[in-house]
Amino acid sequence: MFKVPEHQVAGHHASDGKLGPLVDDLGRFYKPLQSDGRGSKELAFYETFSSDTRVPDHIRRFFPVFYGRQLLEASNGSGKCLHLVLQDIVSGRINPSIMDVKIGSRTWYPGASDEYIKKCFEKDGKTTSVSLGFRISGFQLYEGKESGFWKPGRNDVQSFTVDDVRSVLRRFVSSSSSTGNKKPDCSAAILEQLLELKAWFEDQTIYHFHSCSLLILLDKESVLKGSTPAVEIKLIDFAHVLEGKGVIDHNFLGGLCSLIKFVSDVLSDSKESSITANVESEKPHDCTSNGNCV
Amino acid sequence: MFKVPEHQVAGHHASDGKLGPLVDDLGRFYKPLQSDGRGSKELAFYETFSSDTRVPDHIRRFFPVFYGRQLLEASNGSGKCLHLVLQDIVSGRINPSIMDVKIGSRTWYPGASDEYIKKCFEKDGKTTSVSLGFRISGFQLYEGKESGFWKPGRNDVQSFTVDDVRSVLRRFVSSSSSTGNKKPDCSAAILEQLLELKAWFEDQTIYHFHSCSLLILLDKESVLKGSTPAVEIKLIDFAHVLEGKGVIDHNFLGGLCSLIKFVSDVLSDSKESSITANVESEKPHDCTSNGNCV
Repeated sequence: MFKVPEHQVAGHHASDGKLGPLVDDLGRFYKPLQSDGRGSKELAFYETFSSDTRVPDHIRRFFPVFYGRQLLEASNGSGKCLHLVLQDIVSGRINPSIMDVKIGSRTWYPGASDEYIKKCFEKDGKTTSVSLGFRISGFQLYEGKESGFWKPGRNDVQSFTVDDVRSVLRRFVSSSSSTGNKKPDCSAAILEQLLELKAWFEDQTIYHFHSCSLLILLDKESVLKGSTPAVEIKLIDFAHVLEGKGVIDHNFLGGLCSLIKFVSDVLSDSKESSITANVESEKPHDCTSNGNCV
Repeated sequence: MFKVPEHQVAGHHASDGKLGPLVDDLGRFYKPLQSDGRGSKELAFYETFSSDTRVPDHIRRFFPVFYGRQLLEASNGSGKCLHLVLQDIVSGRINPSIMDVKIGSRTWYPGASDEYIKKCFEKDGKTTSVSLGFRISGFQLYEGKESGFWKPGRNDVQSFTVDDVRSVLRRFVSSSSSTGNKKPDCSAAILEQLLELKAWFEDQTIYHFHSCSLLILLDKESVLKGSTPAVEIKLIDFAHVLEGKGVIDHNFLGGLCSLIKFVSDVLSDSKESSITANVESEKPHDCTSNGNCV
């Protein structure tokens, strides 16, 4: 019944005897509680968040559904272990392209140990977190029947420069663009959803999301079958969420705005080139805010 | 002809034999070039910026006018010294309230020395920079004929907590609210100008403003005389501006959004209370985006 997730692009993997997440056939994702109190903090976040009436419904869709907690045989066979039961975001997807973007120029949180702050501070400077306000933690990009998935190694991703990130994002976001008008162009839907999330972050002072990731999920195949939205944006990894106490999450918001600017640049460049190249061509497919392409 | 500025709220003062800025009667502000290469970097910024055609006119008004450089007898009598010649923002003002807000949760810049980064990092954590995305560096608030100016000491300002900043900002922003409809209410103009600046920062990838300050200047007296706008927002201190290289200034933008949220909260609270208290009263004064109150 339980198996190792097929499309995980970052985080702890259930392989080589390590403790990792599991999925089932019913669309649920089982995340073992991490050690060092991280797991219990993430559980506490999901429990608070899922009943927090201050979070509007149109924002709730950016978070995985939380089904509760469950004792489960650990993926490494080390015995029973408490798991978060979450929505499996890629359940039912055929060839999903997924990118995990860790948001914020600073991944440490006030009140953490000096050792933890130092570790994060150094990694933020070595990766693009300080320069860009975000870093890519991992991705897989479906390039078609022949090429299959492009999924670089973890170390390669971690050594991405600003220019690498720019070109990878460009390739990722443009991958959903229409080819001969056969496939839907959904890069505008990515932008639209990110802007919706941004509007909330400009106002919400409830939570500060430290070291949290934004998942971008693209899946043209599913759309052609008409079953699910082609674009989904989800926030994940809430081990270091603190109370906002009346202050906006400026660290998350700044990084999100930087990501938005990149995606928006890709879009305006592609519009320009399509105008130049295709003045006489058909109107391109539009995307609606729920990620369905029409 | 030259004198020590009357209304300086932060930065180096020309007093006690120290090197500081001077003003003249023609509305010019003379800032001596700081040591450690800071002065020459700031001069280079002003020279580049003043001829940068990528900066739109409606944004240029958020920067002091740059008139060039000039060799001048230093304020401490130590001989001739190169000065930046800038617009004196408070020239002609009667009783200006001024607040200096250093924007950004991080005041150090990539490429600085380890020692400098460490110094900034520690100060950012001790002040509200990390928690709020900005800190108040100094202010003076004109409270009326009897009370005169409220201008706390530098050490007091530097030890402000988040709650101190909230209450000081509230008092500052509300100080321009109308009393019996005799005086103009210009808190909306502050917000409007900050939002205009924000829109530029969401898009501009030319400059990254590290350790830069945003001055908020309020002056009701001048408005009653009809001479100058009651609200002016100016960016100052450009010793650590780096090239943006196609990336937005997410550190500045995040802090600016946090400040905007505070100001916007003050405004919505005061609207609520005025609706409750004054349902039958006259329509309040409106503010236009150029800071004039009508």
